[in-house]
Amino acid sequence: MKITMKEVVKERIDPHSGTAFELRQGQLLKVTAPTGEQVSELICYNLTDPDEWLSSGRTLDHAGAWLIRQGHVLYSNRSRPMLSLLEDSCGRHDFLLAPCSQEMYQQTNSTEANISSCHENLHGRLMAWDIDPDEIYITFKLFMNTQLQADGSLSVDTPASKAGDYVLFRAEMDLVVGLTACAAAQYNNGTLKHIEYEIIEE
Amino acid sequence: MKITMKEVVKERIDPHSGTAFELRQGQLLKVTAPTGEQVSELICYNLTDPDEWLSSGRTLDHAGAWLIRQGHVLYSNRSRPMLSLLEDSCGRHDFLLAPCSQEMYQQTNSTEANISSCHENLHGRLMAWDIDPDEIYITFKLFMNTQLQADGSLSVDTPASKAGDYVLFRAEMDLVVGLTACAAAQYNNGTLKHIEYEIIEE
Repeated sequence: MKITMKEVVKERIDPHSGTAFELRQGQLLKVTAPTGEQVSELICYNLTDPDEWLSSGRTLDHAGAWLIRQGHVLYSNRSRPMLSLLEDSCGRHDFLLAPCSQEMYQQTNSTEANISSCHENLHGRLMAWDIDPDEIYITFKLFMNTQLQADGSLSVDTPASKAGDYVLFRAEMDLVVGLTACAAAQYNNGTLKHIEYEIIEE
Repeated sequence: MKITMKEVVKERIDPHSGTAFELRQGQLLKVTAPTGEQVSELICYNLTDPDEWLSSGRTLDHAGAWLIRQGHVLYSNRSRPMLSLLEDSCGRHDFLLAPCSQEMYQQTNSTEANISSCHENLHGRLMAWDIDPDEIYITFKLFMNTQLQADGSLSVDTPASKAGDYVLFRAEMDLVVGLTACAAAQYNNGTLKHIEYEIIEE
């Protein structure tokens, strides 16, 4: 039997902005960095019960891994599969840090304080599903290259992604998904670039 | 001027159990592993607004570190200081993983499934402050010895703590704190032991 793939949506996320959309169980989500070297932050919630949310800690527990890669499953706080990571052409993502916020920029006197943050860009679109700012947890930061040193420190280096690198997920439940083109130039080799995503049905 | 320390509370947390209590701004919290090799999971919320919660991701961001140690500050999701880590005789704690839950034990067919989990033990006491199970986020896991391998995998090894090792925090806002003696024998060198804590005023 030949499986026919049908593209439902293909969209562009402009530099330092974000979006949100519904993704149905079984649909595929492909997120591409057309230029490379650009982070995209992803968060998701159970569409019918947003108190069930993407949990970094639970995902790391189930994977037995701190680097989430092809073949891993992203879990909810209730230990239920939300997204399966079917394909991953980059292999380097972060699931430890919080999305940057204006409050954080202000605390750290960041030069990014004049532009909107991923936290704001996510909330600005997720509020349509009644998700509050305090309900934005740790995002899965596609292509973010967080390096952990043996002395306990960490750094966020230039993304390892090349032009056209992508990840492909399958939704394991009905979801609302927030997705950004990361707004912090320092994490993206100095320039803010766009991200593309597709929703695909088998 | 001599500073006089006044002990307000000294309590024992029995093996595989948990507690919750209020901690006022400026009060000190000392958590001790009398036997060593025993994890204690800590979570906290703004006492007057529990939508402000202890954020692992925000804490790691502000610290520029994945190992949180003496001198670091534990931050809320709103990038405000909650607890300062004043003293730490062990130096090895985890802030990546979620507290174990019954749902997780069941998914992984764990042998721990017959005893209560840290998630349940925290919720059982925090419900008195109207905190729901879905509002229990990533705990600061005192003395948990999570080792990260270069290939992306992780393991939880025997705690590095010796008998009497402790951490001392100062509350930077009024808090409700949940605290456990970790219930998963595999993380505690095979036996479940008790934890002690003191609330101290300067």
